[in-house]
Amino acid sequence: MDINVVNALTYEDFVQLFGNVVERCPLISAAIWSHRPFKDLEDLEVHITEFIHSLPDSGKEGILRCHPDMAGRDLQSGTLTRESQAEQSQAGMTTLDSAEVLQMYRLNSEYKERFGFPFVICARLNNKADIVRQLSERLKNDRAAERERAIEEVKKSVASGYTILSYLTFKPNCNKLTLQKCLLHLST
Amino acid sequence: MDINVVNALTYEDFVQLFGNVVERCPLISAAIWSHRPFKDLEDLEVHITEFIHSLPDSGKEGILRCHPDMAGRDLQSGTLTRESQAEQSQAGMTTLDSAEVLQMYRLNSEYKERFGFPFVICARLNNKADIVRQLSERLKNDRAAERERAIEEVKKSVASGYTILSYLTFKPNCNKLTLQKCLLHLST
Repeated sequence: MDINVVNALTYEDFVQLFGNVVERCPLISAAIWSHRPFKDLEDLEVHITEFIHSLPDSGKEGILRCHPDMAGRDLQSGTLTRESQAEQSQAGMTTLDSAEVLQMYRLNSEYKERFGFPFVICARLNNKADIVRQLSERLKNDRAAERERAIEEVKKSVASGYTILSYLTFKPNCNKLTLQKCLLHLST
Repeated sequence: MDINVVNALTYEDFVQLFGNVVERCPLISAAIWSHRPFKDLEDLEVHITEFIHSLPDSGKEGILRCHPDMAGRDLQSGTLTRESQAEQSQAGMTTLDSAEVLQMYRLNSEYKERFGFPFVICARLNNKADIVRQLSERLKNDRAAERERAIEEVKKSVASGYTILSYLTFKPNCNKLTLQKCLLHLST
């Protein structure tokens, strides 16, 4: 992937392509565009991380509140973003039986009641059993510790390449024309 | 409007209702929910303003980049958010003749080329002639001054009541049930 191709995008194309790198927060991609030109994809990720850390605690909680519940209403009703759908499918959240769906519902509700934001985990790096176990364990944290823990998971989602890299590395010879086709695909 | 009704909303309902108070930045509404309970609507607006000011310059530019062009592609193709559609209609942007559309296109392009973000103005407080005049004048600013100028317009859009108050004050006896109906309406 030639970073010059990314650096040549208009901010509109950039936000369209990377706008959901952090779930439902196009503001973050739109903000880091100010730091062009990027040296490489890692540099782009560093700017995302730095922006997240520049936010007050309320902003970090805001990022978390823009995430859907794991195996929650949006998954059941098919209203997840394409990025969340891919993540939750990969973690086996689309093949839960009814008892497991109910268990997730109860744990998510307890978590949201306790912290005021949803349980966020980088689903791509965890299977179903890990997710239930970590959800139960993290319920024991205090709010400040859990906010930081959850933000680490958001960063893992970015850095694991689920978002940025999945758009790009499946096209090893990605060039401007390929990106344009990718944008067309995304907008349809 | 009883602020207690707003304070009683879940964060999911709150973000659904106020998520576009700042265009395409649900993160901002999701963040200020951390400051509940709100004293009144003014207090809610103050938290929005304080959050915007807490952002680094890149974040302020990011907010601007989430806005559509005035009388631009999204208006022509019908893909504006309902909030922007209402604002742009009110300012007469939906009844431009072809020469005026072309003029706006050229001025918007020049502005974006110069600043790296779109021209943002509280359309509700301006008519067509004001908008063209201010777009031409603000093109002469330097980037830092213009970023601050444009952010003032974002705050006017929030404070003018276009966003927060338009959801609420048209329902003088607004209660929890009314808000629930409003949410249902928004989600369909």
